[in-house]
Amino acid sequence: MKKPLEMQTDKRTLNMFTMKKRLLINLLLVNVLMITTSAPLPAQNGTTKMMGPPELNLMPVPASFQLQTGRLPITNNFQVGVANFSDDRLRRGIARMMSRLSGRTVLSFAPDLAADSNTATLLIQCENAGDAVPTLTENENYSLEVTDKQAKLTAPTVVGALRGLETFLQLLQGDRDGFYLPAIKIQDQPRFPWRGLLIDVGRHYEPMEVLKRNLNAMAAVKLNVLHWHLTEDQGFRVESKKLPKLHTLGSDGLFYTQEQVREIIAYAQDRGIRVMPEFDIPGHSTSWLVGHPEVGSAPGPYKIERGAGIFEPALDPTREQTYKLLDTFLGEMADLFPDAYMHIGGDENEGKQWDRNQAIQAFMKEKGFKDNHALQAYFNQRVLKILQKHHKKMIGWDEILHADLPKDAVIQSWRGPASLADAARKGYDGILSNGYYIDLIFPASQHYAADPLPRDTTLTAEEARHVLGGEATMWGEWVSPETIDSRIWPRTAAIAERLWSPPNVTEVADMYRRLAVISLQLEELGLTHKKNQDMMLRRLVRSDDIAPLRTLVSVIEPVKEYRRYQVRPQTMLSPLTGVVDAATPDSDAARKLSQMVDAFLADAPRFLVYREEISRTFEDWQASAVTLDARIDQSPALKEIKPLAKNLLGLGATGLESVAHLKMISPATAEWREMRLAGLDEAAKPSGALEFAVIPSLRKLVIAAAEVHRLEVMNPAEWNKQVSTLASPQKK
Amino acid sequence: MKKPLEMQTDKRTLNMFTMKKRLLINLLLVNVLMITTSAPLPAQNGTTKMMGPPELNLMPVPASFQLQTGRLPITNNFQVGVANFSDDRLRRGIARMMSRLSGRTVLSFAPDLAADSNTATLLIQCENAGDAVPTLTENENYSLEVTDKQAKLTAPTVVGALRGLETFLQLLQGDRDGFYLPAIKIQDQPRFPWRGLLIDVGRHYEPMEVLKRNLNAMAAVKLNVLHWHLTEDQGFRVESKKLPKLHTLGSDGLFYTQEQVREIIAYAQDRGIRVMPEFDIPGHSTSWLVGHPEVGSAPGPYKIERGAGIFEPALDPTREQTYKLLDTFLGEMADLFPDAYMHIGGDENEGKQWDRNQAIQAFMKEKGFKDNHALQAYFNQRVLKILQKHHKKMIGWDEILHADLPKDAVIQSWRGPASLADAARKGYDGILSNGYYIDLIFPASQHYAADPLPRDTTLTAEEARHVLGGEATMWGEWVSPETIDSRIWPRTAAIAERLWSPPNVTEVADMYRRLAVISLQLEELGLTHKKNQDMMLRRLVRSDDIAPLRTLVSVIEPVKEYRRYQVRPQTMLSPLTGVVDAATPDSDAARKLSQMVDAFLADAPRFLVYREEISRTFEDWQASAVTLDARIDQSPALKEIKPLAKNLLGLGATGLESVAHLKMISPATAEWREMRLAGLDEAAKPSGALEFAVIPSLRKLVIAAAEVHRLEVMNPAEWNKQVSTLASPQKK
Repeated sequence: MKKPLEMQTDKRTLNMFTMKKRLLINLLLVNVLMITTSAPLPAQNGTTKMMGPPELNLMPVPASFQLQTGRLPITNNFQVGVANFSDDRLRRGIARMMSRLSGRTVLSFAPDLAADSNTATLLIQCENAGDAVPTLTENENYSLEVTDKQAKLTAPTVVGALRGLETFLQLLQGDRDGFYLPAIKIQDQPRFPWRGLLIDVGRHYEPMEVLKRNLNAMAAVKLNVLHWHLTEDQGFRVESKKLPKLHTLGSDGLFYTQEQVREIIAYAQDRGIRVMPEFDIPGHSTSWLVGHPEVGSAPGPYKIERGAGIFEPALDPTREQTYKLLDTFLGEMADLFPDAYMHIGGDENEGKQWDRNQAIQAFMKEKGFKDNHALQAYFNQRVLKILQKHHKKMIGWDEILHADLPKDAVIQSWRGPASLADAARKGYDGILSNGYYIDLIFPASQHYAADPLPRDTTLTAEEARHVLGGEATMWGEWVSPETIDSRIWPRTAAIAERLWSPPNVTEVADMYRRLAVISLQLEELGLTHKKNQDMMLRRLVRSDDIAPLRTLVSVIEPVKEYRRYQVRPQTMLSPLTGVVDAATPDSDAARKLSQMVDAFLADAPRFLVYREEISRTFEDWQASAVTLDARIDQSPALKEIKPLAKNLLGLGATGLESVAHLKMISPATAEWREMRLAGLDEAAKPSGALEFAVIPSLRKLVIAAAEVHRLEVMNPAEWNKQVSTLASPQKK
Repeated sequence: MKKPLEMQTDKRTLNMFTMKKRLLINLLLVNVLMITTSAPLPAQNGTTKMMGPPELNLMPVPASFQLQTGRLPITNNFQVGVANFSDDRLRRGIARMMSRLSGRTVLSFAPDLAADSNTATLLIQCENAGDAVPTLTENENYSLEVTDKQAKLTAPTVVGALRGLETFLQLLQGDRDGFYLPAIKIQDQPRFPWRGLLIDVGRHYEPMEVLKRNLNAMAAVKLNVLHWHLTEDQGFRVESKKLPKLHTLGSDGLFYTQEQVREIIAYAQDRGIRVMPEFDIPGHSTSWLVGHPEVGSAPGPYKIERGAGIFEPALDPTREQTYKLLDTFLGEMADLFPDAYMHIGGDENEGKQWDRNQAIQAFMKEKGFKDNHALQAYFNQRVLKILQKHHKKMIGWDEILHADLPKDAVIQSWRGPASLADAARKGYDGILSNGYYIDLIFPASQHYAADPLPRDTTLTAEEARHVLGGEATMWGEWVSPETIDSRIWPRTAAIAERLWSPPNVTEVADMYRRLAVISLQLEELGLTHKKNQDMMLRRLVRSDDIAPLRTLVSVIEPVKEYRRYQVRPQTMLSPLTGVVDAATPDSDAARKLSQMVDAFLADAPRFLVYREEISRTFEDWQASAVTLDARIDQSPALKEIKPLAKNLLGLGATGLESVAHLKMISPATAEWREMRLAGLDEAAKPSGALEFAVIPSLRKLVIAAAEVHRLEVMNPAEWNKQVSTLASPQKK
């Protein structure tokens, strides 16, 4: 696994050149994106405010669109017609779309295609099948025009049509008069051709249906590469008929048969998604060596790794036997996987086994390699020849970049845009994963800010073309089939938008508004990111009455980066059923509270806006904390969150006290302020690898409560700025 | 599909003879079952009351058990040891149990078996593997003794051990001191050897994972037969390599490959579950005739049936070609399915095609058959010979019973216990399905009351031995992969208990208490009966804010019996995503309200017990109804429940008014009473194939409100009886 450097979130200037080259930006876009942040907040009665013209819920936002007047009703008479080219893949795509449309609307449609193009509700015109096997150069463009008579989807390829069908479904609206699509003209194409999701099935195996439903979700947000990370220290997950000891001894019996691999490839292909396998070498290879210790750099025997981290085992790059095994295995895989690229990992080999192996040291001396990097470069060159023999292009992590690398190799960067730009300047294609490490539990907004081609890039247009896109990485240390969806979704939809939509689509509040809608729609595809949480809470509480625990879980998040393993050690065999597993990244409740608190403080000195809602939230925390505390005594699996339940009570009290001070315009004392801030610092400490996501909002309230007189005279914007400055952790 | 006669719910006298033969009833049982009905009710703070010694949550209740003093702690040191016999099936069963135990407790266990039997937390001693293929005569007995040192599971076969492992998991408890099992001695064996679940995949196809998770659930409640209803008018779901037109033309591409069939059989076998296929002939056979119209009784062509009901197409029993095809197909299936029995349906052939076919009429005349029943008997005799040739025993619905049927055939009764008893007297084995039709949306209590061997049976002991057990039937007209679990579970666990536990285990309130616990545990096996409801509501509302709709859905149920299709016609291609699909049978909220109302009225003339909770319930109905009404206008898929939302408001008002009258001991007028009762009659009418499950409770309250003075002087029991009598619909 790659450790990304710090995420780059600084503001960037617009690179007009790149923009012009890749996009047709429609001016109307700006209007649609200028939704106020208060709109998606819950109104007093718990429903969502609805006002004005229909809000579009498209994600990713198309390259260009214009809303028109009118609407196309969706009724039981809905029919799809196909003009020009059509094939089985298109027909299956239409059938899937109709099933989802029918499911959402509870309308029954005739299953057959319209005989007459003119009477079809949706007419699809495409020109050809597209690439037999999805490729990097696949044409994914489409245009969609909806009038009050008909929707017309035009695309050069079936893949473009499939992308358009997802947009069609996202356009569905409903009101008193029934379901409809707003009249609109859309011209769409991706900004980047490589938009991927890495799923690591090495550390934890994921069953077929997990992969399938995630492919469904990828297609829904127009991602087009499944990067299937198939081998790791902790598991060798693909059947090799030629070297069966690899999977039989390296997988605990949890591997994909070749037939299953073909099933996934066909399933992905049906959705216009490439499947690129990764076989990580020479490091990350313990599971290979269980069956084949003879190609290891230490004598062995080896056992499947159960821990998390970076481990020593590495293939021996000095033996011909190693390359013979790789030739056999990679050749077999080259036949199995039709994608043009094969990922060889190449990362995080620390070379400790190499350092200790005298034969390897002698080999290096003989060859004149001055360090392990040179030895690994030699290894990569040998592997490259094997891939070339089997007609595959090489892709690997930053570490594979060295002088002899051919120009058709691709660099996947965990190091960041600078590393990617460096590769691009040298003429190498690259994709960005730094910034898209979804296993690190950062909020969607942070991933959304990461751009493979930042506005301040200094690449020339020519160089910039080497930046092919990016991939979200779902590393598998702490995910199970029950939890993986909630670690991938909905945040990955924001990354998908970054990789598809114009670079100026950056409005965070509107992204979150649309993300909530898309998140619901993903459920119809079988995704479990929402529904499994309550199930897990029920199991923990051993009761249907999960409301108090849910209140707590809604305002906490798993600890970020790689701290989980440090504060709550586990192995790959440990259960992933704790509160930390039920909790999700990017707390909606914390974000809403933050927005409400900002609006409340900006309403100084009246302090009326959201006061009721905020107070009720804090009261709910207090009531939940009390109930929960009793419940924890009956549910030993909850013991680790006892400190959190206690802190929730305190946070509620702190919040209510702050609101009371502000409401009365009666400043809190400095002593109170210091005591409460110290309490917040204490509450900010993780328990059970979980931490509160609401501390910044409470900090603001406490500061404001103490400074209410001083701040009273300012205008709201200045007021808010002052409080935020005072409340930021550095200033405390 | 079979239409069951009216369910038999009359009281029965204990058949001591049968009891003595089959059971060892432990006297302690009675104590455990005598739980008061108020215990499982929600207390004021929303948590479940806990008091006294640990309540056991075993389901099915074992044949005999004795609670002991002490407890066996479950910690990270938990280990399983195996003495005497062990095989891969047992080891896989242990691994599954440990994974679930680990998941529930969030404890990490060492994966290996204990090297030393003495230090094992759970020691399993079994004698042999049991039958290579699960059979009707499989020994499923086990005994389990838990002390504060060790749990010891003893069983003659691995299947018995698997049953015991489920009991072991159900014994898990937790409190302030951690997880533990109470000390206990259990001796257990099934009352009936045939305990099945029929899943109809003909009308709606169900993916592999649906079958697998339902097999998991079956094993959890000790069911042992999956009756796989594979062919129907609406679909032919199994691959035939010899007659491929059957599945390719008869299934819309939705069928199980033979490899998948073997996968299901192996999965079931791992759990000690038989897989018995059904190929329904000569009726229910439209899908056969799409590919093979030449064996139909009318010339065709045939199309896959899309409607629900009984259809005319039937195989032609007069042609040798028909038997040749059946010999080929059933022979192929006999090789594929190892179970000793093959189900040939035989039901609901109305013979209309036969009546209209002159050749068939001539054949009947020639053979001297005086009616279609005689012709079908001839057909069955021919099919029987085919099955015998392929070494299978025949099983079919009541209709197959005729004079020439061999004594090793089995009758599956949709007609009822009388029909079953009739067969038993004639010397035929039989299983009961009447009373277990879970597709009819009756409450668990009703199924629980149905007994294959009722207490008032007049069968001799010899005859009674022919009653082998029963099967719940999940007919597939209105179930999808999203909803099927909620139609099967948790109610089928009550049926499983009826078929396993001693006949005197009949306490309904305790059954429901345990059913709620088991229902939660089924979720850990992947069952979606609970979690899919919220998901479906979110899709309908297109929002996360489903509370108001959930309030409504919690007190309504789909209409019973076969009324759904009458009031809300659909085809097999229609979406199953409406409110009627999200709603579930056997409303918990209605049952709780009923219990609270009874306790409230029994508290006359104070009317304090549950008054707060009842009033809050009605207030919640009113608030939800108002919010929901607005929401319906934005969600066209909810339009069909607009009348229900309106009625929910009225029901809340009626309830609150009644409570007010009772609280003040101020009787309502006769006019008010008549108006409110008329309103309840109106509200009782279905909308969207849904109906309120709370009308009887409201009726009671209204009557009581009007009669409060007259009833005031009675004692609580008499009072309650009077009100109930007055409130029953017949008396209104």
